[in-house]
Amino acid sequence: MPYTASPLIPSATADHQFSTQNLPYGVFSTSSNPTQRIGVAVGDFVLDLTSCADLLTQSVEGLTAEDVTSSNLNSLMGKESKVWKGLRAQIFSLVTGSAPGLTTSNFVSLTAVTMHMPARIGDYTDFYSSREHATNVGTMFRGIDNALQPNWLHLPVGYHGRASSVFLDGSAVVRPQGQLQKNKEDPKEGSIFGASKLLDFELEMAFFVGGPANPPGTPITMAEAEDRIFGLVVMNDWSSRDVQKWEYVPLGPFCAKNWATSISPWIVSLEALEPYRAATSAREQKDPEPLDYIKDPNYSSYDIALEVTIQGENMSAPETVSKSNFKNLYWNVKQQLVHHSITGCNMSPGDLLGSGTISGTPQDSFGSMLELCWKGTREVKLGESGEVRKFLKDGDTVSMSGVCKKEGVGCVGFGSVTNKIYPAGTKLAASGANGVWKAA
Amino acid sequence: MPYTASPLIPSATADHQFSTQNLPYGVFSTSSNPTQRIGVAVGDFVLDLTSCADLLTQSVEGLTAEDVTSSNLNSLMGKESKVWKGLRAQIFSLVTGSAPGLTTSNFVSLTAVTMHMPARIGDYTDFYSSREHATNVGTMFRGIDNALQPNWLHLPVGYHGRASSVFLDGSAVVRPQGQLQKNKEDPKEGSIFGASKLLDFELEMAFFVGGPANPPGTPITMAEAEDRIFGLVVMNDWSSRDVQKWEYVPLGPFCAKNWATSISPWIVSLEALEPYRAATSAREQKDPEPLDYIKDPNYSSYDIALEVTIQGENMSAPETVSKSNFKNLYWNVKQQLVHHSITGCNMSPGDLLGSGTISGTPQDSFGSMLELCWKGTREVKLGESGEVRKFLKDGDTVSMSGVCKKEGVGCVGFGSVTNKIYPAGTKLAASGANGVWKAA
Repeated sequence: MPYTASPLIPSATADHQFSTQNLPYGVFSTSSNPTQRIGVAVGDFVLDLTSCADLLTQSVEGLTAEDVTSSNLNSLMGKESKVWKGLRAQIFSLVTGSAPGLTTSNFVSLTAVTMHMPARIGDYTDFYSSREHATNVGTMFRGIDNALQPNWLHLPVGYHGRASSVFLDGSAVVRPQGQLQKNKEDPKEGSIFGASKLLDFELEMAFFVGGPANPPGTPITMAEAEDRIFGLVVMNDWSSRDVQKWEYVPLGPFCAKNWATSISPWIVSLEALEPYRAATSAREQKDPEPLDYIKDPNYSSYDIALEVTIQGENMSAPETVSKSNFKNLYWNVKQQLVHHSITGCNMSPGDLLGSGTISGTPQDSFGSMLELCWKGTREVKLGESGEVRKFLKDGDTVSMSGVCKKEGVGCVGFGSVTNKIYPAGTKLAASGANGVWKAA
Repeated sequence: MPYTASPLIPSATADHQFSTQNLPYGVFSTSSNPTQRIGVAVGDFVLDLTSCADLLTQSVEGLTAEDVTSSNLNSLMGKESKVWKGLRAQIFSLVTGSAPGLTTSNFVSLTAVTMHMPARIGDYTDFYSSREHATNVGTMFRGIDNALQPNWLHLPVGYHGRASSVFLDGSAVVRPQGQLQKNKEDPKEGSIFGASKLLDFELEMAFFVGGPANPPGTPITMAEAEDRIFGLVVMNDWSSRDVQKWEYVPLGPFCAKNWATSISPWIVSLEALEPYRAATSAREQKDPEPLDYIKDPNYSSYDIALEVTIQGENMSAPETVSKSNFKNLYWNVKQQLVHHSITGCNMSPGDLLGSGTISGTPQDSFGSMLELCWKGTREVKLGESGEVRKFLKDGDTVSMSGVCKKEGVGCVGFGSVTNKIYPAGTKLAASGANGVWKAA
């Protein structure tokens, strides 16, 4: 199928991350119209859905004005997947000119928009689904023979996280303070108070749950899973390794993880990603085979190239520290969602489920500084800048991006999630609403 | 100070759990007016705040009509504590007749109301703050010499939980299914699928966060803590011990805890509890002393008598299985809140923070079946009914209640949280909105 361009938006070429294959959803405002509203990125522009709500609701069954004119995507997310799919098809027709009605006045320039949190996140969960990452971390802390815990190959290990501290691309991130183990070797000596020294990123992706919530007690089945996944973003699960080390037994990470998680602003649908469906790096799950309820008859993932850069305050440009791929997950998004609900957990539209750190096999594909510097035993070079890192410094800007490219198919990009680290104690302006905080 | 009765509501005697000392907030509706609205329990009646909104907003600075006429308490919770305190004082004046304006038409009978979730819970966290409980569980799983982990006496251990599955008193609870370790002794043999056999309650209390949210990066201080606590409820943190055993390493409880948590419907303020302030069972924290940021200069808790009953399907009455007290917490609510935010976590009005299982020293004060049956090694007698339990059976109704009583002070009761267990696979009606689910 040849690429279909947009007569209205010539910049939406097949090579553009917001090609007509993508059509990701986001929430934006402009200085001339500060109302937060839903948009779809097309080339160098954003289609303002409020401006063409009638064109959408008239032709998509089940779609209401509220779904496309709200200040967030929760209403649309709560509709059945056939509504989102119908909306995507209609937007494609309008943008590519096969359906009439749009003019350039329905678009605003990407350079003119301020992005906001795309949804009110009800609950946020983080998984731990890269076998390479879990093996790396397990090897560092328990040795290679006990790297994976006995449950890891049987279920997607995960934990509940903090929804209030999920921020957006561009938000300031403040270095946390907290309790740190006094003597690294002996926890019995207790703790001291201080700023976290082992500040880290985690390269992840995450998906927003869609569809009407399942009632408590009724798990989501594998056959239903794709209809409950609204779309994906790139995510940085900021972590404080020293806080975590001291606090995490026996109930898991808590304050080490609740101060910041950041996401890219555009939500990419599974339909946009379908041409990029690919085998996972594991290729199959045989030893052991998953239990029936999480066996995916179409076990696969998506070929999404991921990259992490760091730019220190004295550096002239960002330098790449990791290149990974969304394929590097042993448990895929369907399996994560199905397992999450297996005990009967009701999953709501707007919930955000993180993949866990996405590491590949080569060292330069590791998705965290903990792995890249191998627990502080080696320095990570930041390109030719002359700078090195073990963990992150104040003033560092960390950026993560994701993109799908393939001959003959429109490019699908996620934009990026880029955040700067401010020193411990920095006050953020209380006005930094809707996920984008700024230093006061 | 002698007890002040209510001329309008003679049933609100000093002995009534909803005495004029209490004045707890809840959200209710009636069959004649199905609008969900805010009420305050007074004796056998509920004061409908919508019906007297003008009397309240006229005399309380900073209070808006939205705060008292909304369908939940989030707006009121988001105000500064002086607003809640002003509102409580004005309601006390109106109910006790020292301020004019109320008539019996502002009240509806408690027997006529249906209760709803009092707030939209942004994030739910559960602590693990009873030393007796942590010691019991640690002794069972690691032996008495390693019962408490090294961090336990230094910080309130906690973990993030699932907000979507916090339900209300009266809601049906469905036995979960999930992955269970195949061989109890050897995790390396993998897992099987099945209904949870080790179904448990956890006797807890929880508090709702109030006050304007702190921005990320700015922890709540001990001096500010009481102004960020809106009020308390009794909570049952339903748990699946066999699901937990298999899944919880290394990131903590996940599916074992995300299928149900239930709370009592009336939120009791710290001002109502003030006459019941009492030493904790620990009395002091000296060995070790807490770090400065969580040292409470007024280290104390509240004397709240707690009780758990079980009624099996063939029993004619509920039987008590545990009597504990909110004093049995080593870390108090202020310390929990302050520690939660120490890494900079932004805490929002409507967040719910659970205490952890509240066990005392005597065996009959243990707050879970896991402890009462000591990991299945002894049977718990249900009174003289002839029935015994280790863990919970389908059809069991579990009820928890809390009450404060003291000579010369009005009684402060929490009502109760009572839920029946339905067999695995039971379908709940999708209409069971706002926290109270019923079998379909």
